[in-house]
Amino acid sequence: MRLPTRRLMIPLALGALALGATATHAADTGLGEHGAAQRNSGDKTAMLKAEAKEAKAKNVILLIGDGMGDSEITVARNYAKGAAGQFEGIDALPVTGSYTTYSLQKGTEKPDYVPDSAATGSAWATGTKTYDNAISVDTFGEPQETLLEWAKERGLKTGDVTTSELQDATPAVQVSHISARKCYGPVATAANCPDETLEAGGPGSITEQLIETRPDVTLGGGSKTFQETATGGDYAGKTLQEQAEERGYNIVENKDDLAAVSTADQDAPLLGLFAEGNLPVRYTGPIAQKGGTGEPVECTENADRPDTQPSLADMTSKAIDLLDNDNGFFLQVEGASIDKEDHAANACGQIGETVDLDEATQAALEFAKKDGNTLVIVTADHAHTSQIVEANQQTPGLTTNLITADGQPMTVNYATSETPGSQSHTGSQVRIAAYGPGAANVSGLTDQTDTYFTIRSAFEGYQPPVAAAKILGANIKNGSKLAGKATVRIKLDTADAKTVIKLVRNGKTLASNAKDGKQTGKNPTLKVNTKKIKNGKANVTIKATVGGKSTTKTYQVKIRNKR
Amino acid sequence: MRLPTRRLMIPLALGALALGATATHAADTGLGEHGAAQRNSGDKTAMLKAEAKEAKAKNVILLIGDGMGDSEITVARNYAKGAAGQFEGIDALPVTGSYTTYSLQKGTEKPDYVPDSAATGSAWATGTKTYDNAISVDTFGEPQETLLEWAKERGLKTGDVTTSELQDATPAVQVSHISARKCYGPVATAANCPDETLEAGGPGSITEQLIETRPDVTLGGGSKTFQETATGGDYAGKTLQEQAEERGYNIVENKDDLAAVSTADQDAPLLGLFAEGNLPVRYTGPIAQKGGTGEPVECTENADRPDTQPSLADMTSKAIDLLDNDNGFFLQVEGASIDKEDHAANACGQIGETVDLDEATQAALEFAKKDGNTLVIVTADHAHTSQIVEANQQTPGLTTNLITADGQPMTVNYATSETPGSQSHTGSQVRIAAYGPGAANVSGLTDQTDTYFTIRSAFEGYQPPVAAAKILGANIKNGSKLAGKATVRIKLDTADAKTVIKLVRNGKTLASNAKDGKQTGKNPTLKVNTKKIKNGKANVTIKATVGGKSTTKTYQVKIRNKR
Repeated sequence: MRLPTRRLMIPLALGALALGATATHAADTGLGEHGAAQRNSGDKTAMLKAEAKEAKAKNVILLIGDGMGDSEITVARNYAKGAAGQFEGIDALPVTGSYTTYSLQKGTEKPDYVPDSAATGSAWATGTKTYDNAISVDTFGEPQETLLEWAKERGLKTGDVTTSELQDATPAVQVSHISARKCYGPVATAANCPDETLEAGGPGSITEQLIETRPDVTLGGGSKTFQETATGGDYAGKTLQEQAEERGYNIVENKDDLAAVSTADQDAPLLGLFAEGNLPVRYTGPIAQKGGTGEPVECTENADRPDTQPSLADMTSKAIDLLDNDNGFFLQVEGASIDKEDHAANACGQIGETVDLDEATQAALEFAKKDGNTLVIVTADHAHTSQIVEANQQTPGLTTNLITADGQPMTVNYATSETPGSQSHTGSQVRIAAYGPGAANVSGLTDQTDTYFTIRSAFEGYQPPVAAAKILGANIKNGSKLAGKATVRIKLDTADAKTVIKLVRNGKTLASNAKDGKQTGKNPTLKVNTKKIKNGKANVTIKATVGGKSTTKTYQVKIRNKR
Repeated sequence: MRLPTRRLMIPLALGALALGATATHAADTGLGEHGAAQRNSGDKTAMLKAEAKEAKAKNVILLIGDGMGDSEITVARNYAKGAAGQFEGIDALPVTGSYTTYSLQKGTEKPDYVPDSAATGSAWATGTKTYDNAISVDTFGEPQETLLEWAKERGLKTGDVTTSELQDATPAVQVSHISARKCYGPVATAANCPDETLEAGGPGSITEQLIETRPDVTLGGGSKTFQETATGGDYAGKTLQEQAEERGYNIVENKDDLAAVSTADQDAPLLGLFAEGNLPVRYTGPIAQKGGTGEPVECTENADRPDTQPSLADMTSKAIDLLDNDNGFFLQVEGASIDKEDHAANACGQIGETVDLDEATQAALEFAKKDGNTLVIVTADHAHTSQIVEANQQTPGLTTNLITADGQPMTVNYATSETPGSQSHTGSQVRIAAYGPGAANVSGLTDQTDTYFTIRSAFEGYQPPVAAAKILGANIKNGSKLAGKATVRIKLDTADAKTVIKLVRNGKTLASNAKDGKQTGKNPTLKVNTKKIKNGKANVTIKATVGGKSTTKTYQVKIRNKR
């Protein structure tokens, strides 16, 4: 069975995106000709100069391929697109670099060369290196503010999207702080993080902290933990799902309900729970085995993946739609099961999830290109096991033989463990790629913690355009009569404008509020003793200025004092 | 034993190089503090814009770490510098990307996902994808012009430097064209490439083609093959070394003799033969074994490496000194034994060779920074076996336990073969990094063949600055008398200048060669009938202009006609 990813290209017009001068070649014709395998279609100097855009981002979308090292990208590209093909999302980002992913030993702060997803996620979420197992606490156990929390505090909308359980390390690092990654709900927290339960005066389990942190959009799996009952705090005795409902969350559980959602905000945050645990993966195929899996085969669609399950691209597109607003947003998207399938020595599983992340990346890039103020970063949290070896090569490890889009055999080796289910992370530096304002900061060699500063600095560099003030009303209208000591009162929609109110006749200012210093606030006023002014027509002019933009209005009034 | 690489930093002032905003942290203090592991020291937008220099290169230095994938770089960095450290050469290049390395099947032109060093070298040397085993011939067996040949044809000086035998694939791809990489000398060629011997009318063995191609500088190992006797061609009956000597090569065999060389050109090309086979490597240590190598250890200096052997940095610096000239140069430098030690499951061997390549890269960058017109590219030919796994982890493969510069244990896994000597290449995309004019063309995702076009285009974009014309002489001098029909003749050092010669008196032009159109050529002239001019003093002014630069000279003459 051929899978649709090779046949049905995702119909986003990314070919037109100026994301790099690249060309995809059909893999089956003439690659042996001089120049036929080139990817550049011309000199990229001007492109790269242009893509090194100033670090001023209204929005940031951070896409993580869990365990998606360079080897995993190449395995997936060879299979799905052919060796000379390219991913239209993952491969299209113009600025690229590598980053180091090491974690630290608790206590010593010494490097641990092979990190887990908790330490790595904490690194970019907080800018602080920590120990394996830590969820956004440092090596001393101190909670570290996360990008999502910081962005929310700043008035941005926030989102956290994954194909794993929402409590899994990568989504958890943005919304919670706990000493051990497995403290998903009250039960595990009481057992493994007893000092951190709500009843012990702690922050509660990852799920309880997620509910408290309240991103505008949270999408993934892990509904099972939401059925646990809180044992402490204001919602003790209620399930976490009941708590979320009581606290205003809009909970959806399938693709159609997700598609129907039209708003998500602090009044009604969106919580998508699409599976009890991790979301079932797209592809399945032979598990690698000692001596190889025999004749090379194609991957197959995973029959256990329900039609009602949204893809990562579906979730990403919907999250972007719901988060896009005048103040900007921060969105983290994780393709979680590249890692999980690599652990399982399932090449097809890992390939399908990489394709899934590529489609999500395409959706992010499509938005970013239109928006113009969005930084998109695509990277991995750590390297992993899978390696491409010669077709049908025998190794000490477990191998899978697949037929690729080129019609050629490709053998993938898993050899960090004797058993398929326990392949392990590796310590290589991994690729980081970016598009948009601040993208230059991923070039060359960086560390995973730099990503926190790259994102935060890009947000900090952005000055939102200020809307002009609106004059909502006044205590005068055209034709109003002013007599004696009169006060003109204006009502604005903003307290930030400087407002000058004048009484003017024949170009001459009879009175002004400027000298009274009453120029800011939502209710500027002009006090005038009209007795000193001749009776007759005059104008009240209003000029409210904010962020360089002025709003003006004029009322015709009459001075009418008894003489 | 601690190795000097960690203690004695190479004393090149690369810290001052504006190659990226990076900072190296001591690995043993405070890495757990917020922000302490950052590598960026500020926003890199302006840096990246500045480093995207127009593709106009007088010189190109291409450094290849054979088998130096991202994993091999990380293994070496962790060991030699610590996880938070950085290589001052390899890690300092500002523009980075990844490229695909697949080769093709002979006959079908279909991808082979795990290439050898012959196909990969041929790819960047010629811009043509080919089959494993091919030395700069395409899948149809047709020779493809190499960058080194093209540069030489263009009048540039050329160099080919390696730590392997000079006949090994990576150095061979620049100077020869043959169907099988092992056809080093007449003996192997007669056996394996019989149609390609000189006596069969072919191009001869790799060594014979190397002598014929005649780079200005060729440095490496492989003297053994030079002792073979030619069986065809003009030098039949003589050893290849005798042939090289007869053809004017200056042969050196040790570090001191290399240091003493002061010129290398087509009259006396430099041939360094520093070992019978590959150059002995810097470091040695435990060979990986099943179940690990026990207590973690440090690498040791290789006692079999003679003191008389130049390092790769020595060879690179000398090559640059000898090649630097007004017309520019192309130099390929290979750290060959990263690959060979990876095949051998010798982590220390591979680490030492990576350190060696880093020092060569520092030498190249130091020159490039001073020169301003030099493109430096650092990349690998293909990915390889070694992976970092958890300290002391048991794998199905062979593992080595080392103590790094951090004082921490690091375990390296070799698991593409059951035996240490036959670990194999892998198919992952690898890092490519660049500094200098045209560097932008390595960003994002490229293919290995793009590197050929990146380098060639950079050379093609370069217009050498033109020297001002020199006036070598004239048939007049100050005080010369002109009478009757006189011809002033000038002798220039260039035929390209436009030369205006005038006879002038009191600011008035009495005669000019401009109207005759005689403005170019090495011998411009002014013909003047002096009988039409009053007797008296006059000036002959000469203005020769080439490349926007003008050279002027004035002679005082006397018009002396009988009246």
